Amino acid sequence: MNAEKIPDIIIGRLPIYLRALQRMSEKGMKTTSSQELGEHVGISAAQIRKDISQFGEFGKQGTGYSIPFLIDKLRDILKVNRMWDVVIVGAGDMGHALARYPDFANRGFRVCMIFDLDRAKVGQRVGDLTIEDVAKLVECVREAKIKVGMVTVPASSAQEVTDKLVQAGVKAILNYAPTSVNAPSNVHVQHIDPANHLQRMTYYLE
Amino acid sequence: MNAEKIPDIIIGRLPIYLRALQRMSEKGMKTTSSQELGEHVGISAAQIRKDISQFGEFGKQGTGYSIPFLIDKLRDILKVNRMWDVVIVGAGDMGHALARYPDFANRGFRVCMIFDLDRAKVGQRVGDLTIEDVAKLVECVREAKIKVGMVTVPASSAQEVTDKLVQAGVKAILNYAPTSVNAPSNVHVQHIDPANHLQRMTYYLE
Repeated sequence: MNAEKIPDIIIGRLPIYLRALQRMSEKGMKTTSSQELGEHVGISAAQIRKDISQFGEFGKQGTGYSIPFLIDKLRDILKVNRMWDVVIVGAGDMGHALARYPDFANRGFRVCMIFDLDRAKVGQRVGDLTIEDVAKLVECVREAKIKVGMVTVPASSAQEVTDKLVQAGVKAILNYAPTSVNAPSNVHVQHIDPANHLQRMTYYLE
Repeated sequence: MNAEKIPDIIIGRLPIYLRALQRMSEKGMKTTSSQELGEHVGISAAQIRKDISQFGEFGKQGTGYSIPFLIDKLRDILKVNRMWDVVIVGAGDMGHALARYPDFANRGFRVCMIFDLDRAKVGQRVGDLTIEDVAKLVECVREAKIKVGMVTVPASSAQEVTDKLVQAGVKAILNYAPTSVNAPSNVHVQHIDPANHLQRMTYYLE
């Protein structure tokens, strides 16, 4: 396995396979085939076999894939065979929704801090968390060695907040703000933009 | 131009180009190059030229792309040279965040209805909208000929709500529920799953 050489487009499909396999496992299934997995995720069996074979020989001709084995391997590859602490910046509607997102725990993530720029919100509770002042962000996040962040602030503060996360040592940022942000090349940023996702679908509409 | 043949992966990049071009235009820029656009979106100049050339000869050797012209072309291709009415189902934190998302109007979308399953929420206001009873969804959405929907309900109701949207004639669904949903093959569904997006980044972390 040569991690450096695997195209990002393949990495992007692995979480989709992992989630589908976890669902199958919850239903008590023990084995699956690339055909069956493909039907669950809407990706061709050939593509799935090709993607998975990048990491080794995990399936057997005729018997298919062991679901628990493939889950372990994918969790290992994606580095979610551990818990990642996550910080949220922005305690608005989106921040609340993400802080309460029920599907993080069994996918390798735990939201452990939430910050806001609005002093009026500081001290309020979001589930088990207390909203902290963004002025403390760099110190707290650095001390807790948090590497994963989600940005849910308005467009006007998104870059400032991103800079603070980078300064604090965060290396992976999921940006829900309605603007793109810049970060150094060693920090991974993904932008969730509902308009982009909708436009990709309207292309196909009549 | 043969729309049938363009790979979906290319279609998925067009909204990213369009957004970047709109930003450039807002700053008063009139022309750009594939190199410059590439730096904005983090995609190689060669890839951008290849993607755009699928739809015609929109750039000129030496002078690059006219930003207003390329914006018009991309809006035309993505069918966002018009306003799409959008329905939201689920008036929780995520539904509120999306109903108030400030970047829809200039990207071709207008949230015009929001429904909830909780009768206690019905009649409450979200910005300019009134939360409606999901029992009225099929009738209202069909009558208004809405083709685009966003699902922000809990996992347990996501499939039921998706079925109602499909029944009402919706053809493009952005699913924010923490579960995948099934729809007929003529309905486009995209699943926004923050855990998937985070896992794609943890792969690269040490």
